[in-house]
Amino acid sequence: MNIITSRDNSKVKRLVSLHKRENARREGLVFLEGERLCRDAFDSGIKPCEVIVTEKNISWAESHANGAEVTALSDDCFKKIASTVNPQGIACIVKQPVLEAKIPYRGDGNDIYAVLEDIQDPGNLGTIIRTADAFDFTAVIMSPSTCDPFNEKTIRASMGSVWHLPLVTSSMDDAFAFFAEKGIDSLAMHLKGEDLKEADIRLPAAYLIGNEGRGLSDETSAKCTRLVKIPMPGKAESLNAAAASAITGYVLSSKRK
Amino acid sequence: MNIITSRDNSKVKRLVSLHKRENARREGLVFLEGERLCRDAFDSGIKPCEVIVTEKNISWAESHANGAEVTALSDDCFKKIASTVNPQGIACIVKQPVLEAKIPYRGDGNDIYAVLEDIQDPGNLGTIIRTADAFDFTAVIMSPSTCDPFNEKTIRASMGSVWHLPLVTSSMDDAFAFFAEKGIDSLAMHLKGEDLKEADIRLPAAYLIGNEGRGLSDETSAKCTRLVKIPMPGKAESLNAAAASAITGYVLSSKRK
Repeated sequence: MNIITSRDNSKVKRLVSLHKRENARREGLVFLEGERLCRDAFDSGIKPCEVIVTEKNISWAESHANGAEVTALSDDCFKKIASTVNPQGIACIVKQPVLEAKIPYRGDGNDIYAVLEDIQDPGNLGTIIRTADAFDFTAVIMSPSTCDPFNEKTIRASMGSVWHLPLVTSSMDDAFAFFAEKGIDSLAMHLKGEDLKEADIRLPAAYLIGNEGRGLSDETSAKCTRLVKIPMPGKAESLNAAAASAITGYVLSSKRK
Repeated sequence: MNIITSRDNSKVKRLVSLHKRENARREGLVFLEGERLCRDAFDSGIKPCEVIVTEKNISWAESHANGAEVTALSDDCFKKIASTVNPQGIACIVKQPVLEAKIPYRGDGNDIYAVLEDIQDPGNLGTIIRTADAFDFTAVIMSPSTCDPFNEKTIRASMGSVWHLPLVTSSMDDAFAFFAEKGIDSLAMHLKGEDLKEADIRLPAAYLIGNEGRGLSDETSAKCTRLVKIPMPGKAESLNAAAASAITGYVLSSKRK
Protein backbone atom coordinates (compact mmCIF):
# COMPACT_ATOMS: atom_id res chain seq x y z
CA MET A 1 0.00 0.00 0.00
CA ASN A 2 1.14 3.50 -0.89
CA ILE A 3 2.00 5.56 2.22
CA ILE A 4 1.58 9.30 2.08
CA THR A 5 4.64 11.00 3.54
CA SER A 6 4.23 14.64 2.51
CA ARG A 7 2.41 17.08 4.75
CA ASP A 8 1.60 19.05 1.60
CA ASN A 9 -0.26 16.18 -0.02
CA SER A 10 -3.79 17.27 -0.98
CA LYS A 11 -5.31 14.33 0.89
CA VAL A 12 -3.54 15.34 4.09
CA LYS A 13 -4.80 18.89 3.64
CA ARG A 14 -8.35 17.65 3.16
CA LEU A 15 -8.13 15.49 6.32
CA VAL A 16 -6.79 18.42 8.35
CA SER A 17 -9.71 20.46 7.13
CA LEU A 18 -12.25 17.72 7.95
CA HIS A 19 -10.93 17.40 11.48
CA LYS A 20 -12.30 20.90 12.05
CA ARG A 21 -15.83 20.12 13.11
CA GLU A 22 -17.47 22.95 11.18
CA ASN A 23 -15.99 21.68 7.91
CA ALA A 24 -17.02 18.08 8.48
CA ARG A 25 -20.51 19.15 9.53
CA ARG A 26 -20.94 21.18 6.35
CA GLU A 27 -20.24 18.01 4.38
CA GLY A 28 -22.43 15.82 6.59
CA LEU A 29 -19.43 13.92 7.92
CA VAL A 30 -17.90 13.08 11.31
CA PHE A 31 -14.15 12.68 11.83
CA LEU A 32 -13.34 10.12 14.52
CA GLU A 33 -9.86 9.86 15.98
CA GLY A 34 -8.56 6.97 18.05
CA GLU A 35 -9.43 3.30 18.11
CA ARG A 36 -12.13 3.57 20.77
CA LEU A 37 -14.19 6.18 18.95
CA CYS A 38 -13.86 4.29 15.65
CA ARG A 39 -14.81 0.95 17.19
CA ASP A 40 -17.77 2.43 19.09
CA ALA A 41 -19.15 3.59 15.74
CA PHE A 42 -18.38 0.35 13.86
CA ASP A 43 -19.82 -1.78 16.68
CA SER A 44 -23.03 0.25 16.37
CA GLY A 45 -23.34 -0.63 12.69
CA ILE A 46 -21.91 2.64 11.32
CA LYS A 47 -19.83 1.99 8.20
CA PRO A 48 -16.78 4.14 7.58
CA CYS A 49 -16.44 6.19 4.39
CA GLU A 50 -12.68 6.12 4.84
CA VAL A 51 -10.21 4.68 7.34
CA ILE A 52 -6.98 6.59 7.95
CA VAL A 53 -4.05 4.91 9.69
CA THR A 54 -0.31 4.94 10.14
CA GLU A 55 1.77 2.17 8.60
CA LYS A 56 1.74 -0.03 11.71
CA ASN A 57 -2.08 -0.01 11.76
CA ILE A 58 -2.69 -1.02 8.14
CA SER A 59 -3.83 -4.50 9.08
CA TRP A 60 -6.23 -3.01 11.67
CA ALA A 61 -7.62 -0.79 8.95
CA GLU A 62 -8.03 -3.64 6.50
CA SER A 63 -9.92 -5.73 9.02
CA HIS A 64 -12.25 -2.84 9.94
CA ALA A 65 -12.69 -0.96 6.64
CA ASN A 66 -15.77 -2.95 5.62
CA GLY A 67 -15.16 -2.04 1.98
CA ALA A 68 -14.20 1.58 2.60
CA GLU A 69 -11.07 3.22 1.23
CA VAL A 70 -7.98 2.89 3.45
CA THR A 71 -5.48 5.75 3.53
CA ALA A 72 -2.06 5.14 5.04
CA LEU A 73 -0.03 8.08 6.34
CA SER A 74 3.46 8.36 7.71
CA ASP A 75 3.62 8.99 11.48
CA ASP A 76 4.52 12.60 10.78
CA CYS A 77 1.56 13.16 8.43
CA PHE A 78 -0.80 11.49 10.91
CA LYS A 79 0.37 13.90 13.61
CA LYS A 80 -0.66 16.74 11.35
CA ILE A 81 -4.24 15.47 10.99
CA ALA A 82 -4.59 14.38 14.63
CA SER A 83 -5.70 16.48 17.57
CA THR A 84 -3.91 14.43 20.22
CA VAL A 85 -0.23 14.91 20.99
CA ASN A 86 0.61 11.22 20.79
CA PRO A 87 -1.91 9.89 18.28
CA GLN A 88 -2.66 6.17 18.14
CA GLY A 89 -2.50 6.30 14.35
CA ILE A 90 -6.13 5.30 13.84
CA ALA A 91 -8.93 7.52 12.54
CA CYS A 92 -11.93 7.29 10.27
CA ILE A 93 -14.57 9.38 8.59
CA VAL A 94 -18.21 8.36 8.83
CA LYS A 95 -21.41 9.88 7.51
CA GLN A 96 -23.12 11.97 10.16
CA PRO A 97 -26.44 10.36 11.10
CA VAL A 98 -29.27 12.66 10.12
CA LEU A 99 -30.68 14.47 13.14
CA GLU A 100 -34.25 13.33 12.89
CA ALA A 101 -36.86 16.00 12.31
CA LYS A 102 -39.80 13.83 13.35
CA ILE A 103 -40.00 12.67 16.96
CA PRO A 104 -40.21 8.87 17.12
CA TYR A 105 -42.96 7.24 19.19
CA ARG A 106 -43.22 3.63 20.33
CA GLY A 107 -46.71 3.84 21.76
CA ASP A 108 -46.22 0.98 24.24
CA GLY A 109 -46.95 3.24 27.19
CA ASN A 110 -43.27 3.32 28.19
CA ASP A 111 -41.92 6.13 26.02
CA ILE A 112 -39.48 8.43 27.80
CA TYR A 113 -37.88 11.51 26.24
CA ALA A 114 -35.19 13.88 27.46
CA VAL A 115 -35.73 17.37 26.06
CA LEU A 116 -32.75 19.69 26.22
CA GLU A 117 -33.13 23.44 26.01
CA ASP A 118 -29.81 24.95 24.94
CA ILE A 119 -27.41 22.61 26.75
CA GLN A 120 -24.00 24.11 25.96
CA ASP A 121 -21.41 21.81 27.46
CA PRO A 122 -20.40 19.00 25.07
CA GLY A 123 -19.46 16.71 27.98
CA ASN A 124 -22.86 17.20 29.61
CA LEU A 125 -24.62 16.50 26.31
CA GLY A 126 -22.63 13.30 25.79
CA THR A 127 -23.31 12.12 29.34
CA ILE A 128 -27.04 12.85 28.96
CA ILE A 129 -27.14 10.85 25.71
CA ARG A 130 -25.27 7.96 27.37
CA THR A 131 -27.78 7.90 30.25
CA ALA A 132 -30.73 8.13 27.84
CA ASP A 133 -29.31 5.14 25.98
CA ALA A 134 -28.76 3.17 29.21
CA PHE A 135 -32.40 3.76 30.21
CA ASP A 136 -33.69 2.99 26.71
CA PHE A 137 -35.31 6.37 26.04
CA THR A 138 -37.25 6.72 22.80
CA ALA A 139 -35.22 9.79 21.80
CA VAL A 140 -33.23 12.78 23.00
CA ILE A 141 -34.85 15.97 21.72
CA MET A 142 -32.61 19.02 21.43
CA SER A 143 -33.51 22.67 20.87
CA PRO A 144 -31.76 24.12 17.81
CA SER A 145 -29.33 26.02 20.09
CA THR A 146 -28.16 22.92 21.94
CA CYS A 147 -24.53 22.12 21.16
CA ASP A 148 -23.59 19.77 18.33
CA PRO A 149 -23.99 16.09 19.34
CA PHE A 150 -21.31 15.05 16.85
CA ASN A 151 -18.71 17.26 18.46
CA GLU A 152 -15.73 15.05 19.38
CA LYS A 153 -16.10 15.74 23.12
CA THR A 154 -19.76 14.80 23.04
CA ILE A 155 -19.12 11.57 21.12
CA ARG A 156 -16.37 10.70 23.59
CA ALA A 157 -18.53 11.40 26.68
CA SER A 158 -21.41 9.43 25.16
CA MET A 159 -19.21 6.29 25.02
CA GLY A 160 -20.76 5.41 21.66
CA SER A 161 -24.35 6.14 22.66
CA VAL A 162 -24.68 8.92 20.02
CA TRP A 163 -24.88 6.03 17.51
CA HIS A 164 -27.53 4.09 19.46
CA LEU A 165 -30.66 6.17 19.83
CA PRO A 166 -32.55 8.78 17.83
CA LEU A 167 -31.31 12.34 18.34
CA VAL A 168 -33.91 14.86 17.25
CA THR A 169 -33.51 18.58 16.68
CA SER A 170 -36.83 20.27 17.26
CA SER A 171 -38.23 23.62 18.27
CA MET A 172 -39.78 23.55 21.73
CA ASP A 173 -43.15 24.40 20.11
CA ASP A 174 -43.06 21.38 17.84
CA ALA A 175 -42.06 19.15 20.76
CA PHE A 176 -44.98 20.40 22.90
CA ALA A 177 -47.39 19.94 19.97
CA PHE A 178 -46.21 16.34 19.67
CA PHE A 179 -46.55 15.71 23.42
CA ALA A 180 -50.08 17.17 23.40
CA GLU A 181 -51.11 15.05 20.41
CA LYS A 182 -49.86 11.84 22.02
CA GLY A 183 -50.90 12.62 25.60
CA ILE A 184 -47.34 12.65 26.90
CA ASP A 185 -46.73 14.34 30.25
CA SER A 186 -44.02 17.02 30.10
CA LEU A 187 -42.05 17.60 33.29
CA ALA A 188 -40.06 20.78 33.77
CA MET A 189 -37.04 20.19 35.99
CA HIS A 190 -37.48 23.32 38.05
CA LEU A 191 -36.35 24.47 41.49
CA LYS A 192 -39.95 25.53 42.28
CA GLY A 193 -41.47 22.19 41.28
CA GLU A 194 -43.05 19.47 43.40
CA ASP A 195 -40.84 16.77 44.90
CA LEU A 196 -39.86 14.24 42.21
CA LYS A 197 -40.18 11.41 44.74
CA GLU A 198 -43.76 12.27 45.60
CA ALA A 199 -45.05 13.44 42.22
CA ASP A 200 -47.63 11.13 40.67
CA ILE A 201 -45.80 10.73 37.36
CA ARG A 202 -47.04 8.28 34.76
CA LEU A 203 -45.48 7.23 31.49
CA PRO A 204 -45.24 8.10 28.67
CA ALA A 205 -43.36 11.18 29.83
CA ALA A 206 -40.78 13.71 28.74
CA TYR A 207 -38.60 15.75 31.05
CA LEU A 208 -37.07 19.08 30.14
CA ILE A 209 -33.63 20.21 31.24
CA GLY A 210 -32.49 23.79 30.74
CA ASN A 211 -29.22 25.47 29.93
CA GLU A 212 -26.41 24.99 32.47
CA GLY A 213 -26.31 28.64 33.52
CA ARG A 214 -29.87 29.84 33.15
CA GLY A 215 -31.94 26.71 33.80
CA LEU A 216 -35.16 26.18 31.90
CA SER A 217 -36.69 29.36 30.45
CA ASP A 218 -39.92 30.63 32.02
CA GLU A 219 -41.60 30.35 28.62
CA THR A 220 -40.76 26.65 28.31
CA SER A 221 -41.53 25.87 31.96
CA ALA A 222 -44.98 27.44 31.53
CA LYS A 223 -45.78 25.06 28.68
CA CYS A 224 -45.00 21.93 30.69
CA THR A 225 -47.80 19.92 32.27
CA ARG A 226 -45.92 19.74 35.59
CA LEU A 227 -42.96 21.26 37.43
CA VAL A 228 -40.84 18.82 39.40
CA LYS A 229 -37.71 19.19 41.47
CA ILE A 230 -35.10 16.92 42.89
CA PRO A 231 -35.11 17.57 46.66
CA MET A 232 -31.73 18.89 47.82
CA PRO A 233 -31.38 19.04 51.60
CA GLY A 234 -27.72 20.17 51.43
CA LYS A 235 -25.95 23.40 50.56
CA ALA A 236 -25.53 23.10 46.79
CA GLU A 237 -28.31 25.10 45.14
CA SER A 238 -28.54 23.06 41.99
CA LEU A 239 -27.27 19.92 40.33
CA ASN A 240 -25.18 19.53 37.21
CA ALA A 241 -27.49 19.16 34.19
CA ALA A 242 -26.23 15.65 33.40
CA ALA A 243 -26.58 14.58 37.06
CA ALA A 244 -30.16 15.90 37.19
CA SER A 245 -30.91 14.14 33.92
CA ALA A 246 -29.50 10.86 35.26
CA ILE A 247 -31.66 11.00 38.39
CA THR A 248 -34.84 11.87 36.49
CA GLY A 249 -34.10 9.25 33.84
CA TYR A 250 -33.67 6.61 36.54
CA VAL A 251 -36.90 7.62 38.31
CA LEU A 252 -38.93 7.56 35.08
CA SER A 253 -37.34 4.31 33.90
CA SER A 254 -38.22 2.68 37.23
CA LYS A 255 -41.92 3.46 36.57
CA ARG A 256 -42.00 1.24 33.50
CA LYS A 257 -44.29 -1.75 33.61
CA MET B 1 -2.14 51.66 44.93
CA ASN B 2 1.08 50.57 43.28
CA ILE B 3 0.39 48.63 40.08
CA ILE B 4 2.94 46.04 38.98
CA THR B 5 3.65 46.45 35.28
CA SER B 6 6.75 44.30 34.74
CA ARG B 7 6.41 40.66 33.77
CA ASP B 8 9.81 40.13 35.39
CA ASN B 9 8.65 41.32 38.78
CA SER B 10 9.34 38.67 41.44
CA LYS B 11 5.71 38.74 42.60
CA VAL B 12 4.49 38.03 39.08
CA LYS B 13 6.92 35.14 38.85
CA ARG B 14 5.70 33.74 42.15
CA LEU B 15 2.06 33.96 41.01
CA VAL B 16 2.86 32.23 37.72
CA SER B 17 4.49 29.46 39.71
CA LEU B 18 1.54 29.17 42.14
CA HIS B 19 -0.90 28.85 39.28
CA LYS B 20 0.75 25.52 38.53
CA ARG B 21 -1.27 23.22 40.75
CA GLU B 22 1.69 21.11 41.92
CA ASN B 23 3.48 24.19 43.25
CA ALA B 24 0.44 25.54 45.08
CA ARG B 25 -0.30 22.12 46.55
CA ARG B 26 3.22 21.83 47.89
CA GLU B 27 2.64 25.08 49.79
CA GLY B 28 -0.85 24.09 50.94
CA LEU B 29 -2.46 26.77 48.77
CA VAL B 30 -5.12 26.97 46.05
CA PHE B 31 -4.99 29.51 43.22
CA LEU B 32 -8.47 30.58 42.11
CA GLU B 33 -8.97 32.51 38.88
CA GLY B 34 -12.09 34.39 37.93
CA GLU B 35 -14.79 36.10 39.95
CA ARG B 36 -17.04 33.06 40.23
CA LEU B 37 -14.42 30.75 41.72
CA CYS B 38 -13.26 33.46 44.14
CA ARG B 39 -16.82 34.31 45.23
CA ASP B 40 -17.77 30.65 45.67
CA ALA B 41 -14.91 30.31 48.13
CA PHE B 42 -15.56 33.63 49.96
CA ASP B 43 -19.31 32.87 50.20
CA SER B 44 -18.38 29.58 51.86
CA GLY B 45 -16.40 31.37 54.56
CA ILE B 46 -12.97 30.83 53.03
CA LYS B 47 -10.74 33.85 53.63
CA PRO B 48 -8.23 34.79 50.94
CA CYS B 49 -4.52 34.99 51.73
CA GLU B 50 -4.10 37.39 48.82
CA VAL B 51 -6.34 38.94 46.18
CA ILE B 52 -4.84 39.69 42.77
CA VAL B 53 -6.61 42.00 40.34
CA THR B 54 -6.14 44.31 37.39
CA GLU B 55 -6.46 48.07 37.88
CA LYS B 56 -10.15 48.20 37.00
CA ASN B 57 -10.96 45.59 39.69
CA ILE B 58 -9.18 47.26 42.62
CA SER B 59 -12.42 48.31 44.26
CA TRP B 60 -13.77 44.75 43.88
CA ALA B 61 -10.61 43.49 45.56
CA GLU B 62 -10.87 45.97 48.40
CA SER B 63 -14.45 45.01 49.14
CA HIS B 64 -13.65 41.28 49.13
CA ALA B 65 -10.14 41.11 50.59
CA ASN B 66 -11.36 40.71 54.17
CA GLY B 67 -8.05 41.98 55.49
CA ALA B 68 -5.86 40.12 53.00
CA GLU B 69 -3.14 41.71 50.90
CA VAL B 70 -4.32 43.11 47.55
CA THR B 71 -1.94 42.96 44.58
CA ALA B 72 -2.72 45.04 41.51
CA LEU B 73 -1.27 44.04 38.15
CA SER B 74 -1.33 45.66 34.74
CA ASP B 75 -3.56 43.86 32.21
CA ASP B 76 -0.44 42.50 30.55
CA CYS B 77 0.99 41.08 33.79
CA PHE B 78 -2.37 39.57 34.70
CA LYS B 79 -2.45 37.76 31.35
CA LYS B 80 0.85 36.20 32.29
CA ILE B 81 -0.49 34.75 35.55
CA ALA B 82 -3.89 33.76 34.11
CA SER B 83 -4.79 30.53 32.36
CA THR B 84 -7.70 31.96 30.38
CA VAL B 85 -7.16 33.81 27.10
CA ASN B 86 -9.31 36.79 28.08
CA PRO B 87 -8.96 36.92 31.85
CA GLN B 88 -11.50 38.80 33.96
CA GLY B 89 -8.69 40.34 35.99
CA ILE B 90 -9.72 38.73 39.27
CA ALA B 91 -7.88 35.96 41.14
CA CYS B 92 -7.05 34.99 44.68
CA ILE B 93 -4.99 32.60 46.71
CA VAL B 94 -6.57 30.69 49.57
CA LYS B 95 -5.28 28.13 52.02
CA GLN B 96 -6.12 24.62 50.89
CA PRO B 97 -8.54 23.04 53.34
CA VAL B 98 -6.90 20.06 55.01
CA LEU B 99 -8.13 16.80 53.54
CA GLU B 100 -9.48 15.19 56.67
CA ALA B 101 -7.79 12.02 57.83
CA LYS B 102 -10.59 11.01 60.15
CA ILE B 103 -13.98 10.16 58.68
CA PRO B 104 -16.69 12.32 60.26
CA TYR B 105 -19.83 10.71 61.66
CA ARG B 106 -23.10 12.33 62.63
CA GLY B 107 -24.72 9.29 64.20
CA ASP B 108 -28.29 10.44 63.55
CA GLY B 109 -29.01 7.37 61.44
CA ASN B 110 -28.92 9.39 58.23
CA ASP B 111 -25.21 9.38 57.41
CA ILE B 112 -24.44 8.87 53.72
CA TYR B 113 -20.93 8.63 52.27
CA ALA B 114 -19.66 8.47 48.70
CA VAL B 115 -16.44 6.45 48.52
CA LEU B 116 -14.36 6.95 45.38
CA GLU B 117 -11.77 4.44 44.30
CA ASP B 118 -9.31 6.12 41.94
CA ILE B 119 -11.68 8.49 40.11
CA GLN B 120 -9.41 10.16 37.54
CA ASP B 121 -11.50 12.74 35.72
CA PRO B 122 -11.46 16.11 37.52
CA GLY B 123 -14.87 17.04 36.06
CA ASN B 124 -16.40 13.80 37.35
CA LEU B 125 -14.89 14.36 40.79
CA GLY B 126 -16.27 17.93 40.94
CA THR B 127 -19.73 16.80 39.85
CA ILE B 128 -19.72 13.98 42.42
CA ILE B 129 -18.77 16.46 45.17
CA ARG B 130 -21.51 18.87 44.02
CA THR B 131 -24.11 16.08 44.16
CA ALA B 132 -22.85 14.90 47.57
CA ASP B 133 -23.25 18.48 48.83
CA ALA B 134 -26.76 18.79 47.35
CA PHE B 135 -27.84 15.59 49.14
CA ASP B 136 -26.11 16.57 52.37
CA PHE B 137 -23.70 13.66 52.59
CA THR B 138 -21.57 13.41 55.71
CA ALA B 139 -18.38 13.24 53.62
CA VAL B 140 -16.81 12.24 50.33
CA ILE B 141 -14.10 9.65 50.97
CA MET B 142 -11.37 9.37 48.33
CA SER B 143 -8.72 6.69 47.84
CA PRO B 144 -5.21 8.15 47.80
CA SER B 145 -5.05 7.70 43.98
CA THR B 146 -8.21 9.69 43.32
CA CYS B 147 -7.45 12.93 41.49
CA ASP B 148 -6.81 16.17 43.39
CA PRO B 149 -10.09 17.79 44.55
CA PHE B 150 -8.46 21.23 44.50
CA ASN B 151 -7.57 20.96 40.84
CA GLU B 152 -9.10 23.98 39.06
CA LYS B 153 -11.39 21.84 36.88
CA THR B 154 -12.71 19.98 39.92
CA ILE B 155 -13.37 23.19 41.83
CA ARG B 156 -15.16 24.62 38.80
CA ALA B 157 -17.31 21.51 38.26
CA SER B 158 -18.15 21.40 41.98
CA MET B 159 -19.71 24.91 41.74
CA GLY B 160 -18.25 25.76 45.14
CA SER B 161 -19.18 22.49 46.83
CA VAL B 162 -15.52 21.59 47.49
CA TRP B 163 -15.71 24.23 50.23
CA HIS B 164 -18.94 22.89 51.76
CA LEU B 165 -18.46 19.35 52.94
CA PRO B 166 -15.69 17.22 54.43
CA LEU B 167 -13.39 15.65 51.84
CA VAL B 168 -11.46 12.75 53.31
CA THR B 169 -8.47 10.92 51.89
CA SER B 170 -8.44 7.40 53.26
CA SER B 171 -7.19 3.96 52.35
CA MET B 172 -10.02 1.58 51.47
CA ASP B 173 -9.00 -0.55 54.47
CA ASP B 174 -9.40 2.30 56.92
CA ALA B 175 -12.76 3.19 55.40
CA PHE B 176 -14.05 -0.38 55.75
CA ALA B 177 -12.77 -0.55 59.34
CA PHE B 178 -14.74 2.63 60.09
CA PHE B 179 -17.90 1.30 58.42
CA ALA B 180 -17.63 -1.97 60.37
CA GLU B 181 -17.14 -0.13 63.68
CA LYS B 182 -20.19 2.08 63.11
CA GLY B 183 -22.42 -0.53 61.48
CA ILE B 184 -22.58 1.33 58.18
CA ASP B 185 -23.72 -0.67 55.13
CA SER B 186 -21.25 -0.47 52.23
CA LEU B 187 -22.71 -0.79 48.73
CA ALA B 188 -20.51 -1.63 45.78
CA MET B 189 -21.88 -0.12 42.57
CA HIS B 190 -21.32 -3.18 40.45
CA LEU B 191 -22.76 -4.51 37.20
CA LYS B 192 -23.36 -7.88 38.88
CA GLY B 193 -25.20 -6.44 41.88
CA GLU B 194 -28.86 -6.63 42.85
CA ASP B 195 -31.29 -4.04 41.48
CA LEU B 196 -30.87 -0.74 43.32
CA LYS B 197 -34.62 -0.18 43.23
CA GLU B 198 -35.41 -3.46 44.94
CA ALA B 199 -32.49 -3.71 47.34
CA ASP B 200 -33.44 -3.37 51.01
CA ILE B 201 -30.99 -0.60 51.77
CA ARG B 202 -31.03 1.14 55.13
CA LEU B 203 -29.11 4.14 56.33
CA PRO B 204 -26.48 4.86 57.46
CA ALA B 205 -24.83 3.75 54.21
CA ALA B 206 -21.83 4.31 52.01
CA TYR B 207 -21.66 3.57 48.30
CA LEU B 208 -18.46 2.87 46.44
CA ILE B 209 -17.78 4.05 42.89
CA GLY B 210 -14.78 2.78 40.94
CA ASN B 211 -12.40 4.21 38.41
CA GLU B 212 -13.95 5.40 35.13
CA GLY B 213 -12.23 2.77 33.00
CA ARG B 214 -11.90 -0.22 35.30
CA GLY B 215 -14.88 0.10 37.62
CA LEU B 216 -14.54 -0.99 41.24
CA SER B 217 -11.70 -3.43 41.91
CA ASP B 218 -12.62 -7.01 42.80
CA GLU B 219 -10.75 -6.61 46.06
CA THR B 220 -12.84 -3.62 47.12
CA SER B 221 -16.12 -5.10 45.86
CA ALA B 222 -15.48 -8.22 47.96
CA LYS B 223 -15.21 -6.12 51.12
CA CYS B 224 -18.58 -4.42 50.64
CA THR B 225 -21.62 -5.67 52.51
CA ARG B 226 -23.71 -5.64 49.32
CA LEU B 227 -23.40 -5.32 45.55
CA VAL B 228 -26.01 -3.15 43.85
CA LYS B 229 -26.55 -2.10 40.27
CA ILE B 230 -28.59 0.51 38.48
CA PRO B 231 -30.83 -1.39 36.05
CA MET B 232 -30.06 -0.40 32.45
CA PRO B 233 -32.59 -1.75 29.95
CA GLY B 234 -30.96 0.05 26.99
CA LYS B 235 -27.81 -0.44 24.94
CA ALA B 236 -25.22 1.51 26.96
CA GLU B 237 -23.31 -0.94 29.10
CA SER B 238 -22.46 1.42 31.92
CA LEU B 239 -23.12 4.89 33.21
CA ASN B 240 -20.74 7.78 33.67
CA ALA B 241 -19.32 7.66 37.23
CA ALA B 242 -20.86 11.02 38.17
CA ALA B 243 -24.23 10.00 36.72
CA ALA B 244 -24.18 6.71 38.68
CA SER B 245 -23.20 8.63 41.80
CA ALA B 246 -26.08 11.09 41.32
CA ILE B 247 -28.65 8.31 40.98
CA THR B 248 -27.36 6.40 44.00
CA GLY B 249 -27.09 9.57 46.04
CA TYR B 250 -30.69 10.45 45.23
CA VAL B 251 -31.93 6.96 46.10
CA LEU B 252 -30.08 6.91 49.43
CA SER B 253 -31.10 10.46 50.28
CA SER B 254 -34.74 9.58 49.63
CA LYS B 255 -34.50 6.87 52.33
CA ARG B 256 -33.85 9.42 55.06
CA LYS B 257 -36.40 9.73 57.81
